[in-house]
Amino acid sequence: MPFQLRAEEKLVPNAGTIQPMEYEVIDTQVSPTGRLEILSRTEAAKLLDIGHGGLHQLYRDCSLAVLNCGNELDDGKELLERYRDFDIRIMQRQRGIKLDIKGAPASAFVDGKMITGIREHLFAVLRDVIYVSEEIRGNPRFALDTSGGVTDAVFHILRNASVLQPRTDPNLVVCWGGHSVGREEYEYTKVIGYQLGLRGLDICTGCGPGAMKGPMKGAAIAHAKQRIGTGRYIGFTEPGIIAAEAPNPIVNELVIFPDVEKRLEAFVRAGHGFVVFPGGAGTAEEILYILGVLLHPSNADVPFPLVFTGPKSAENYFRQIDQFVGATLGVEAQRLYKIIIDDPVQVAREIQAGIKLVRNFRKQQRDSYYFNSMLKIEHDFQRPFHPSHENMRKLKLHRNQPRHTLAANLRRAFSGVVAGNVKNEGIREIEKHGSFEIQGDAAIMGPMDALLASFVAQQRMKLSSKKYNPCYRIVAETAA
Amino acid sequence: MPFQLRAEEKLVPNAGTIQPMEYEVIDTQVSPTGRLEILSRTEAAKLLDIGHGGLHQLYRDCSLAVLNCGNELDDGKELLERYRDFDIRIMQRQRGIKLDIKGAPASAFVDGKMITGIREHLFAVLRDVIYVSEEIRGNPRFALDTSGGVTDAVFHILRNASVLQPRTDPNLVVCWGGHSVGREEYEYTKVIGYQLGLRGLDICTGCGPGAMKGPMKGAAIAHAKQRIGTGRYIGFTEPGIIAAEAPNPIVNELVIFPDVEKRLEAFVRAGHGFVVFPGGAGTAEEILYILGVLLHPSNADVPFPLVFTGPKSAENYFRQIDQFVGATLGVEAQRLYKIIIDDPVQVAREIQAGIKLVRNFRKQQRDSYYFNSMLKIEHDFQRPFHPSHENMRKLKLHRNQPRHTLAANLRRAFSGVVAGNVKNEGIREIEKHGSFEIQGDAAIMGPMDALLASFVAQQRMKLSSKKYNPCYRIVAETAA
Amino acid sequence: MPFQLRAEEKLVPNAGTIQPMEYEVIDTQVSPTGRLEILSRTEAAKLLDIGHGGLHQLYRDCSLAVLNCGNELDDGKELLERYRDFDIRIMQRQRGIKLDIKGAPASAFVDGKMITGIREHLFAVLRDVIYVSEEIRGNPRFALDTSGGVTDAVFHILRNASVLQPRTDPNLVVCWGGHSVGREEYEYTKVIGYQLGLRGLDICTGCGPGAMKGPMKGAAIAHAKQRIGTGRYIGFTEPGIIAAEAPNPIVNELVIFPDVEKRLEAFVRAGHGFVVFPGGAGTAEEILYILGVLLHPSNADVPFPLVFTGPKSAENYFRQIDQFVGATLGVEAQRLYKIIIDDPVQVAREIQAGIKLVRNFRKQQRDSYYFNSMLKIEHDFQRPFHPSHENMRKLKLHRNQPRHTLAANLRRAFSGVVAGNVKNEGIREIEKHGSFEIQGDAAIMGPMDALLASFVAQQRMKLSSKKYNPCYRIVAETAA
Amino acid sequence: MPFQLRAEEKLVPNAGTIQPMEYEVIDTQVSPTGRLEILSRTEAAKLLDIGHGGLHQLYRDCSLAVLNCGNELDDGKELLERYRDFDIRIMQRQRGIKLDIKGAPASAFVDGKMITGIREHLFAVLRDVIYVSEEIRGNPRFALDTSGGVTDAVFHILRNASVLQPRTDPNLVVCWGGHSVGREEYEYTKVIGYQLGLRGLDICTGCGPGAMKGPMKGAAIAHAKQRIGTGRYIGFTEPGIIAAEAPNPIVNELVIFPDVEKRLEAFVRAGHGFVVFPGGAGTAEEILYILGVLLHPSNADVPFPLVFTGPKSAENYFRQIDQFVGATLGVEAQRLYKIIIDDPVQVAREIQAGIKLVRNFRKQQRDSYYFNSMLKIEHDFQRPFHPSHENMRKLKLHRNQPRHTLAANLRRAFSGVVAGNVKNEGIREIEKHGSFEIQGDAAIMGPMDALLASFVAQQRMKLSSKKYNPCYRIVAETAA
Repeated sequence: MPFQLRAEEKLVPNAGTIQPMEYEVIDTQVSPTGRLEILSRTEAAKLLDIGHGGLHQLYRDCSLAVLNCGNELDDGKELLERYRDFDIRIMQRQRGIKLDIKGAPASAFVDGKMITGIREHLFAVLRDVIYVSEEIRGNPRFALDTSGGVTDAVFHILRNASVLQPRTDPNLVVCWGGHSVGREEYEYTKVIGYQLGLRGLDICTGCGPGAMKGPMKGAAIAHAKQRIGTGRYIGFTEPGIIAAEAPNPIVNELVIFPDVEKRLEAFVRAGHGFVVFPGGAGTAEEILYILGVLLHPSNADVPFPLVFTGPKSAENYFRQIDQFVGATLGVEAQRLYKIIIDDPVQVAREIQAGIKLVRNFRKQQRDSYYFNSMLKIEHDFQRPFHPSHENMRKLKLHRNQPRHTLAANLRRAFSGVVAGNVKNEGIREIEKHGSFEIQGDAAIMGPMDALLASFVAQQRMKLSSKKYNPCYRIVAETAA
Repeated sequence: MPFQLRAEEKLVPNAGTIQPMEYEVIDTQVSPTGRLEILSRTEAAKLLDIGHGGLHQLYRDCSLAVLNCGNELDDGKELLERYRDFDIRIMQRQRGIKLDIKGAPASAFVDGKMITGIREHLFAVLRDVIYVSEEIRGNPRFALDTSGGVTDAVFHILRNASVLQPRTDPNLVVCWGGHSVGREEYEYTKVIGYQLGLRGLDICTGCGPGAMKGPMKGAAIAHAKQRIGTGRYIGFTEPGIIAAEAPNPIVNELVIFPDVEKRLEAFVRAGHGFVVFPGGAGTAEEILYILGVLLHPSNADVPFPLVFTGPKSAENYFRQIDQFVGATLGVEAQRLYKIIIDDPVQVAREIQAGIKLVRNFRKQQRDSYYFNSMLKIEHDFQRPFHPSHENMRKLKLHRNQPRHTLAANLRRAFSGVVAGNVKNEGIREIEKHGSFEIQGDAAIMGPMDALLASFVAQQRMKLSSKKYNPCYRIVAETAA
Repeated sequence: MPFQLRAEEKLVPNAGTIQPMEYEVIDTQVSPTGRLEILSRTEAAKLLDIGHGGLHQLYRDCSLAVLNCGNELDDGKELLERYRDFDIRIMQRQRGIKLDIKGAPASAFVDGKMITGIREHLFAVLRDVIYVSEEIRGNPRFALDTSGGVTDAVFHILRNASVLQPRTDPNLVVCWGGHSVGREEYEYTKVIGYQLGLRGLDICTGCGPGAMKGPMKGAAIAHAKQRIGTGRYIGFTEPGIIAAEAPNPIVNELVIFPDVEKRLEAFVRAGHGFVVFPGGAGTAEEILYILGVLLHPSNADVPFPLVFTGPKSAENYFRQIDQFVGATLGVEAQRLYKIIIDDPVQVAREIQAGIKLVRNFRKQQRDSYYFNSMLKIEHDFQRPFHPSHENMRKLKLHRNQPRHTLAANLRRAFSGVVAGNVKNEGIREIEKHGSFEIQGDAAIMGPMDALLASFVAQQRMKLSSKKYNPCYRIVAETAA
Repeated sequence: MPFQLRAEEKLVPNAGTIQPMEYEVIDTQVSPTGRLEILSRTEAAKLLDIGHGGLHQLYRDCSLAVLNCGNELDDGKELLERYRDFDIRIMQRQRGIKLDIKGAPASAFVDGKMITGIREHLFAVLRDVIYVSEEIRGNPRFALDTSGGVTDAVFHILRNASVLQPRTDPNLVVCWGGHSVGREEYEYTKVIGYQLGLRGLDICTGCGPGAMKGPMKGAAIAHAKQRIGTGRYIGFTEPGIIAAEAPNPIVNELVIFPDVEKRLEAFVRAGHGFVVFPGGAGTAEEILYILGVLLHPSNADVPFPLVFTGPKSAENYFRQIDQFVGATLGVEAQRLYKIIIDDPVQVAREIQAGIKLVRNFRKQQRDSYYFNSMLKIEHDFQRPFHPSHENMRKLKLHRNQPRHTLAANLRRAFSGVVAGNVKNEGIREIEKHGSFEIQGDAAIMGPMDALLASFVAQQRMKLSSKKYNPCYRIVAETAA
């Protein structure tokens, strides 16, 4: 009888991945796949240096995050605790460096061999950790306390990662959206990616699961049909979030920015069209960031295609977002985006038309296609925000300020919620000191409370099936 | 109010394609994408020649079938009737030929531009129609009435299509299965393709929808993760079936064989591992073909990895197939395959291990990796079978013959059912003369009737949601 | 004392090759480098077949000629006698065929490893010998007794060798000229090739030494400077001449035509511009061929850039040629070419301008860029001419015929001289029966005698330093 | 009469270049060909900045030098004076930068279009001028006053220029030799390059004319024959010498180092085998540099294949060199090289065997193949030497010091002579203050005087046909 049935393993349907025995790990040595695999002796020494604090730890943690891909785990703290024995070391060999890896999550391997895409990501981590440490930090030529200086740093990180490609027409679509989305929304993001890909457009996301993975899968299939062998699936991440949102291996250009703010700036400088899917606090952060930037008077004429979209079931979600924006930033902010429900072809056409305007504008202004340098981003949006309890409490969430400043502060509030939800440091803070307190005008805190509550109700905060335990407390002040 | 909802169009979920207004057509001119785009004057003239009967008609019909991709239509006759005004003409230009196309199905286009993969397929049709007509038919060097001669023709068609690739290790997995499968089975075929692709394996199918498309999509995603830019998605078809099973555009190597029998031979000669998913009459035909071939005593030692697989829900399906094989061809035939239920990783590993044996065997025998020439295929399996009412009635379906001859005849019976279901000519025959009559020993006809009935019950015969109207009638004879 | 001087070996200056000990040979096995390396069993069998006469012998002799590259030997007969023990056999292996070679000239190897370009040539020989034998000869679709049929055969041989490339602009410059030229003329051909290459033009020659090699070397350096990685160095040869004019390994597309006439036709159909350097009887043959073709009234409007050129020292040579043409074919023939002395830049510009006209003409006529099908070539120029003593004697060399017919006959006369000089068969004929007798009108035979005498005086007949012994005798008839 | 003779222009035989009317210039705009074409706003501004002194001037002068290729002019000062109006400006465009060029030497163009190789070199200049200025100079991480710091800088410049290639076996042959060599020696360098290229070896030189160009041409032809499409022709230069030794356009990797010393270090760190042809003061400088380095006791075990070679006529030249080395550095220095006369095959085999030892040594030591970091280079050899009259006079040229220190000082002496001969600044110094005075022990000054005199006699000092006017005066001290 030739029958053979599987008993012990459970197939995750449609994901094609087998949930490995928890904590199963593999030791291995890997060679680079791509170009940057040459380290000077000084550089190699710094990555091995545990004493000085920082570089090795950072490198090790980001590497672990990258290797964790395929495991459905969005808890940065848990990840680090689960693979305590993980370590990664650089070895100099005659043909370049190799990585000596101990205790890597087994999900990064197929029959004992590391998935090539993940191998690439490991070396992207190496490249960016080195570059930011060696070339950006403490280098006097980057005036990081000015708007221009930060932008210059973002430019250099992108260029060093070969993301800036001259001689190509604008075609990069940034897709924002939640990492924790339901099946229907996930399938919808794939169809959007498919329709974008059919039109030759490339995808850039935060490179985690959910709405960050779907568009890439869809675009990959479309690119295959269009015989586009050079499709780009770009992922922008940062050390805080990477552990919670492991890059999926389709990402073929991964960049690790030093902080949330540079990552956000990179999205808006490198992208040409922007699609926002339903999401949680992180997506709200992204929306507030871009609206805040676009509301700046200097940016009034800069074309910026921005579409919010989802399946029929997401209609209410976007109504809530739209109302929140209206209530806090006003109708001018609402005019900056278009909401399209359940119509992927229309979304693709809208984005394509918008990118055409971007192209014409850049050409006319002689601004490069690969880096939007016309956009004014105030230093307020660039300064790294550390979501401590004190900083969260001190956020100015009232109407008595320019709208783009309010947007900047609201952005910080949601950023803090993301940290408290999924980031290692944030979770530890919450464990130690309890919920963040977010306070402000009742006219703002009311809609904010409602919005966050709906994220919770729709399970957009965390992947885990456990009941979500809010990391924040809304305190509305009566306006004096 | 920025909201925009789609009213008039219906999204086909997860397929990413919009059902166009029926009969919407497009006129266009296209240039070739690949290499064969040079025709001599003689060749071009023959393709334009309507008078002589055949070449232009055949070329036009196959081209239409290729362009119909994306429409969920598996009725060859209906396709031809729906696009009566379709035509395709070759134009000689200074840089090579162009195709002038009238009345092509709009689904082959994105915003008016033909999908590149489909464009490639059009030129594959051109290549194979010319080659078979000019080089194979009527060329005295092919002794098509001998086993060796037919095999030589299959070899030449494959070589001319650049499918035979020397200097590569065996890695081609043929996936057989129904074009009309349910969601769960479809997803399962994707996961299988994904697991095969992760292991660097390529896919070859009959290149229609359903179980022929799923493995390619899964493998495409896996190849992207493994950075395999040269993944092969090979489709083998023939003029009779192509209209019913339009090649999906992921297929990056398409070959149109002159008939069912050469197509089947191409699968077994070019493939290294074989996976069978649930399907209908066509899948049964394929199973009987390969079992019949493998039962030949000369093939006893030729390694041939053959796995039947499906999700949990397909377990009963395969029990039925297994019983039918046992009842008709006996336990020796049952030993030729392994059935694995709901375990994609195990399937992939089984196939991989089997291919290793194939590799060792070929190396030892100095048989080429790219063409299995050791396998003995009797001329009985090669001779084209025309499923007329008379031929169907005359099939010898009794036990009083060698098992592999019985297998050959059973194969023909199922081949006739496929024709009656979805092929243009077959459907017309049935319309004119009523159902085929299939008769034979009760001991064989009983299981056959049961099997066909279960295909009907499980909606494996046709895509359409209309009630299936059988094109055959089983007549059991009492053994004298 | 670190000094080391070479005593026993003699450096051939500037050629970079060491004259090996005569008859040094090497046994080896080689794999293919390019694409055609797949043979069917039938094809392989034919190449191994010695009995039937022909195919193996032809294949072996051409292979030997290709391997003889680098040896300064232009005597086909001597080559075959020198390497009597040479043999080449096809072996089927799991990854495709290999060649088993015994007794190959050592000059084809560097430290025991065959030069890759020569390896490629071996497989080009294989490809063309098979193709002509299997697909052209005895295939009823080629009506080789008609002008159209021969042209179709030439087209198919070129296409099969991938020489016809659509989607490229006309840029192929055919360079004709002697294999036996002095240092100054050789350097001049390099400079011409260099100036052509700087302008992005590709080179096609008869692929032997001397004026056939120089332009390729010059163009290769120019292409390197222009970063043209796809430069084409095309060589057209035929079994009779290949032994005398071994293809130099820079040739990256080698085609072996079945006879002189198809080779000549291939030049004029595939090339876009034509440069003629000084040469001997072979070059005269080429000049008469093309003038004869162009003199046909149907070709009056077909643009055909034709430049004769050489260094200052070659001025007299071209005056003689020009006078001979004037005396035999008249001033209309003289109008068909331009003679430019000692001015490579001007030659390159003239050719480039001419090719522009070719381009416009083809575009307007919708004739392909890759194959000049507008040119009328009478069957008289296509019919293979066998230079037996009888055929040579019977040539009609008088004025009482249309000019292009006279050109055809003059062409044959020079063709016979080439055979008697360097071809295996021709040399044997001469050895057996003495000199060819060439007779005709005194008005024609006079100039012809003078021209041939000047070739002898200038050592353009043979490479060897031995005194040239004419293989012909001119007999002038008094016009009746 | 179709004849056409060139009167007004003179063909430079075998160079394929036409001497343009002196001072003919062209204005143009060019786009980049390769990868680095993205500048940040800051970087672009610095290159345009004339005020601060330096960056624009340096950039402009090096660009002019690169464009001067093909003109036989080795006088840096004359070049700058001849093209006074030349200027180059960076323009930001939507697809990246472009260069706006005024008054460029016409020899860089073919029919008005810049030769692609030269276009590449222009962007190499841009890349290196920016990199050294922005990343090396004034960056605290490079301790340029230590041996390790300078080596690190050399490493970074090489890496930034993509010269360091991991995953390749050692195969880079550095060829040193004069820019002013006779025809026979030039042809010999081509044959050496040819024999190296046949063996798959790549070439690295100082990238000027003469012995720096010949090996590349020879290797290019050999690589074409071996179908090596990725052959590397690497040129290392520096701002002082580039004007006198314009890179030839075959060079497909050009690096401009900030000074002579880093350029010399780059040669010995990046190369695997070393061939020295006859040359003048520059070649003597290179020989003394490498002997000085190798004489350091720490380098005793580091394998370093070093061959001096030339045609028969160069035998005396190398005897003189050998005697000079013996007289100044002793027999131990003489043991470090091998002299092979007139035997290219033997040179190639010797180098190949030596590289094998290098490979084994690096593998064993886990030192990278692409950068020889085991070699100890004392800071004495790294410190830039400015050849002022005072510095030249103060050189310690006596035996009373370790041999490698004496070598370092001798190296400086020859370096000064090179500057006085061909470098802009050096020539100006000499014009102002008269000849350099070089003084030292008679036992050293005697051989040195003899050597320099022989360079003059053999016309190895300058290209120009004018009589050479020495820029130095030898003063021998009687040892106290």
